[in-house]
Amino acid sequence: MRLTISAFVFVSVLTSTSIAVAEETPPTLDLMPVPAQIELGTGFYTIDEDFSVNLEGDGATPRLRRGAQRMLRRLSDRSALFFEPSTFLELVDRDDAAMTVTADRAGGLALGGDESYRLAVTQEGIRLQAATDIGALRGLETFLQLLTLDENGVTVSEVVIFDEPRFPWRGLMIDSSRHFMPVEVIKRNLDGMAAVKLNVLHWHLVDDQGFRVECLALPKLHELGSDGLYYTRVQIREVIDYAADRGIRVVPEFDLPGHGTAWLTAYPELGSAPGPYEIERSWGIFDPTINPTIEETYVFLDTFFAEMAALFDDDFIHIGGDENNGKHWLANPEIVAFMEKNGYDEPLMLQRYFNERVLEILTSYGKRMIGWDEIFQEGLPKNIVIQSWRGRESLFEAARLGYPGILSNGYYIDLIHPTDHHYLNDPLPDDSDLSAEEAARILGGEATMWAEYVSSETVDSRIWPRTAAIAERFWSPGTVRDVADMYRRLDHISLQLEELGLQHERNRPMMLRQLCRCRDIAPLEVLLGTIEPVKVYRRGQQRKHTQFSPLTRMVDAAWPDAAPARQFQWAVASFLGGDLADEFDIASIRGALESWQKNDAALEETLGTSPALAEIQPMSATLTEVSAIGLDALDLLTKSDAAPGAEWLQPRIERLEAARKPHGQTELMVVDPVLELVCAAALPASLKEPGCQPKQEAMAVGEH
Amino acid sequence: MRLTISAFVFVSVLTSTSIAVAEETPPTLDLMPVPAQIELGTGFYTIDEDFSVNLEGDGATPRLRRGAQRMLRRLSDRSALFFEPSTFLELVDRDDAAMTVTADRAGGLALGGDESYRLAVTQEGIRLQAATDIGALRGLETFLQLLTLDENGVTVSEVVIFDEPRFPWRGLMIDSSRHFMPVEVIKRNLDGMAAVKLNVLHWHLVDDQGFRVECLALPKLHELGSDGLYYTRVQIREVIDYAADRGIRVVPEFDLPGHGTAWLTAYPELGSAPGPYEIERSWGIFDPTINPTIEETYVFLDTFFAEMAALFDDDFIHIGGDENNGKHWLANPEIVAFMEKNGYDEPLMLQRYFNERVLEILTSYGKRMIGWDEIFQEGLPKNIVIQSWRGRESLFEAARLGYPGILSNGYYIDLIHPTDHHYLNDPLPDDSDLSAEEAARILGGEATMWAEYVSSETVDSRIWPRTAAIAERFWSPGTVRDVADMYRRLDHISLQLEELGLQHERNRPMMLRQLCRCRDIAPLEVLLGTIEPVKVYRRGQQRKHTQFSPLTRMVDAAWPDAAPARQFQWAVASFLGGDLADEFDIASIRGALESWQKNDAALEETLGTSPALAEIQPMSATLTEVSAIGLDALDLLTKSDAAPGAEWLQPRIERLEAARKPHGQTELMVVDPVLELVCAAALPASLKEPGCQPKQEAMAVGEH
Repeated sequence: MRLTISAFVFVSVLTSTSIAVAEETPPTLDLMPVPAQIELGTGFYTIDEDFSVNLEGDGATPRLRRGAQRMLRRLSDRSALFFEPSTFLELVDRDDAAMTVTADRAGGLALGGDESYRLAVTQEGIRLQAATDIGALRGLETFLQLLTLDENGVTVSEVVIFDEPRFPWRGLMIDSSRHFMPVEVIKRNLDGMAAVKLNVLHWHLVDDQGFRVECLALPKLHELGSDGLYYTRVQIREVIDYAADRGIRVVPEFDLPGHGTAWLTAYPELGSAPGPYEIERSWGIFDPTINPTIEETYVFLDTFFAEMAALFDDDFIHIGGDENNGKHWLANPEIVAFMEKNGYDEPLMLQRYFNERVLEILTSYGKRMIGWDEIFQEGLPKNIVIQSWRGRESLFEAARLGYPGILSNGYYIDLIHPTDHHYLNDPLPDDSDLSAEEAARILGGEATMWAEYVSSETVDSRIWPRTAAIAERFWSPGTVRDVADMYRRLDHISLQLEELGLQHERNRPMMLRQLCRCRDIAPLEVLLGTIEPVKVYRRGQQRKHTQFSPLTRMVDAAWPDAAPARQFQWAVASFLGGDLADEFDIASIRGALESWQKNDAALEETLGTSPALAEIQPMSATLTEVSAIGLDALDLLTKSDAAPGAEWLQPRIERLEAARKPHGQTELMVVDPVLELVCAAALPASLKEPGCQPKQEAMAVGEH
Repeated sequence: MRLTISAFVFVSVLTSTSIAVAEETPPTLDLMPVPAQIELGTGFYTIDEDFSVNLEGDGATPRLRRGAQRMLRRLSDRSALFFEPSTFLELVDRDDAAMTVTADRAGGLALGGDESYRLAVTQEGIRLQAATDIGALRGLETFLQLLTLDENGVTVSEVVIFDEPRFPWRGLMIDSSRHFMPVEVIKRNLDGMAAVKLNVLHWHLVDDQGFRVECLALPKLHELGSDGLYYTRVQIREVIDYAADRGIRVVPEFDLPGHGTAWLTAYPELGSAPGPYEIERSWGIFDPTINPTIEETYVFLDTFFAEMAALFDDDFIHIGGDENNGKHWLANPEIVAFMEKNGYDEPLMLQRYFNERVLEILTSYGKRMIGWDEIFQEGLPKNIVIQSWRGRESLFEAARLGYPGILSNGYYIDLIHPTDHHYLNDPLPDDSDLSAEEAARILGGEATMWAEYVSSETVDSRIWPRTAAIAERFWSPGTVRDVADMYRRLDHISLQLEELGLQHERNRPMMLRQLCRCRDIAPLEVLLGTIEPVKVYRRGQQRKHTQFSPLTRMVDAAWPDAAPARQFQWAVASFLGGDLADEFDIASIRGALESWQKNDAALEETLGTSPALAEIQPMSATLTEVSAIGLDALDLLTKSDAAPGAEWLQPRIERLEAARKPHGQTELMVVDPVLELVCAAALPASLKEPGCQPKQEAMAVGEH
């Protein structure tokens, strides 16, 4: 017991000083999200094969027990330490335990539950204290991120951490409709979410392209609306239990009244147009819409939500509500007559009527309603929650009127923006003009993984590691926003996320092997380090995709945030921003350009003999050309005093502009930094020339 | 219709000639397993985005439809061809289809069902014909292996294949007891099995370390015997249906009366010793054994098998029967009295009594019994099947007495033997002295994936790709046994298996990243290319493992059959077997030795700073030393006429002997070929010296 008491005293002493420190930017170590307060000591605790855990308090629930067992498994797997079976099996009444975890009570899985914890490491042991078992789970994740593995073995630095989330709603939306995601995909992503302290899985289960949940009372929904790809009720419960075990709520979304094709494929009689309907196979905004003017709709929805309210135990049900274009309503004389009779001038007013009716149903089953911006209307009770895809202003407007909301605009991870784009997007910036009361209505945010262009093989690489940075935005103090430090930590965290079975890292080389049907993928990896998928909605604009299109191409293997391109960009910025003499920058820039310049030759055979890679061949040639231009410019900047002027510059700007052309729905990410080199080489003042302005969004750091 | 008729004529013409050809060794292309008969044409068929499939005949079942859809998905994913949604959704009445698949009837999933097919490719189209939908599925897998992707696009060579299996029972046993394997692991391995035409999943569900199936009637079995890690009845059905969709039977094994700890943890009253019992956490042969002398045992088993016979719909149930050491029986006076009363001199006789009682129960539920060698006894009805872990002779003995059997001895893939070891092991060699009638009782064989040292992360790398070669042994003509050609094809097939979600290839670099917590794993991969896990049962002898030991170490990342070591060995054999002047061999040998020699320096920092890699550090140093010795010998052999003699040789032999010492339960696989180089350099006759004999099992090609 001495050990425990000693640790406790240490906590108390350090905490009082650490608060002051934490109001500055806390030290970030390799943690993500960064805790609210950290105080570092000087020694460390060594973990060996005698390590053990003792659980204490009324919060030592089966959930916490399983969480501690998972922590031990990961600790053993990462360190290769052999623990005795008893270490895993006996977690209470261990007076000798190296780590003591105290939780005062079982946490409820509801919005605003206590997730705080205090973690103290001394040379004598580790003490984790939390009000709830869920808080203790959060602390166990921090503990695993604190481990140091080096020549000293497995150690944890002396530290006292007090931590709690900035926002209570920290979500990830996964779209299982457009491409079905098997249960194991959801589970491994729940593990990833838990590792970075996200606490809401928003499960987009219904859209035009598929109805993904079994419904006993209305079985045609899953039978006709899903191609057989749906979650059984047992699987839904399995996911909910798995999430609950990790302190994560599951909020299901059943998109209504627009995005209605799958509903209406099963029950066309509820449609606003005569039908029949077929599952939609392509992407976009479609017309099929549920008819809000017939009572059959509400009888149907009452039956449906009765079953779903019992199946999903979270307080919230998400009803979508987005992107109803109103076309089928305005084309139906009976619906138009209903609108006229009720004085509804536009479809949105009819949708408000629909929302009120749905809200009534949800309320009768004890549920709160959440929906996208479009559900917002004054007069609705103030316990509904608005999820904003439109933007912060829309969210703030609702907050001013008394409605809570969460931000998703800026967190659309399907759009392939770089991590910093999302990271610097704050649901509640320092300079917001909201009152404290209004600000409290900003509950947090959600990253949204729309599934037009992801399969179970690629979805992890779109979610991770970027969502870890978004999770930090939702959890950590708003002052934590150093982009370079974020990327440094993200690199560690991305590897740690692999430990959980996430496939973002491992599937990239696999996809390259599959593309070339070969094992020497090094030149393909070099090319991949310089390209990214085209951003926002351009992929679909450049090539028509359907639910059946292959997602196994270079554009799918490519990552948002191509690391070598980003590092090159930074080196160029540092070089040009300095005195053009930094040897490290010069070597980095030259090394990158030289390896890219010769890569096309290395790839020749591979690209030429693979039909699946043929589309990327022009990109490889372009990379070589751009690199040669960059090397010339670098030589001028480092080996010559002459600036060759506008005549030299202009054709190079033109060639670089041409290099921006996408191939295979990917774009080359190194054009802008080479342009900067070329402009700097040509004219001292060239960065002010119009043709010298960077154009790629990846460069637009800090647009928020 | 013209196309179809033309293809059909082509089939008929070529088949008559191809039979003669096939009796020689057939051309193997990149196929595995090699078909029974192949006749190659000269042209090819080109697959483009208009490709489509038409299903015909009474065998165009939902199973075949789903199989064709999976084939289309893989074809599109591999080629990056964009097919229309209708290509996937409309598979009948397509007169324009490039590929016609005709199946005469739905195949039954029973031992000996028809799996033959005929596949004809002409320049005008593809025609697949089969008696059953299951045969057609086999043909679809062959079709996918026939695809050529090169500068001509996606093509299939003109060919006529007639194919059918050599053996009707071609199995893979997966042990889900010692380490639990989640459903998705089983499913992806079923996909792999289907790809190489295996047709039995033998599911080892019960052993000392865990009872892995839910039992409604006797719920303590899964509640107390599994740590909560068991398959629900719904999941079992999901796996059976998934397997059936791929033409694979599922034979469950419930090991009895030995390996009884999990049964008895739940129901100690059935034990031969008083108990209580606890789930076994380590590996070996343990004493807990069901008491065969009390009637309660049979009442219990009747209840149990009534439920399992209904849950599992295959004709067979496997009762284990192996490795009952009899200790608890002989220590129990009542059991000894029972034995005496019945004239049983030894435990095996009591086990025979038990088997008869169990057989009676299984028979009453319409099931046939299969078990390991120990269940064999004369007098049992001849519809039981013996699975031989003891060896071919044991199997042949049973066959002579009228009992059918399958071979597993020689296919223990957990023991880390190289692929050729298993590949050359034939259940029924040409020179067997069995009569035709007796030979027909040799039904096939099973690879066995015992799970002491595998997790869901590593199990694929133990099963694949080696099991593809075993599958060829069970399917292809016995004359197909060219080891070099097998390895060539295996390399292709291993990459194709990745397409199915198998993780054998992708998890190796992932494990290395996790071990070094770094991204530059090239030097670790070099080391890994020279080592293998220690073989047979030596891993456990060298370090005590339990169910909770980490399976994330170098020994787990290492593969059986390390390819660079094997290629080095071949180059040395070719070099020494030739005139010592082959430039290609010399360059290969020198290149390998030089890269290995300098690898320890490249690894220094990585190994030094990772506690999990520290154990492998001596191996890296040894590799450098062995490589230096090898380079010296190569110089002597290629640049000098002098043979330095025994005095030079002896210390080198000693150093190489020392280099055989395992580290971290891995062994260095390049010692023998370096020894050969050294001996050849020292003395022309040196290969006859005792110290010059190779010692590693990987070298013992063709021991069967």
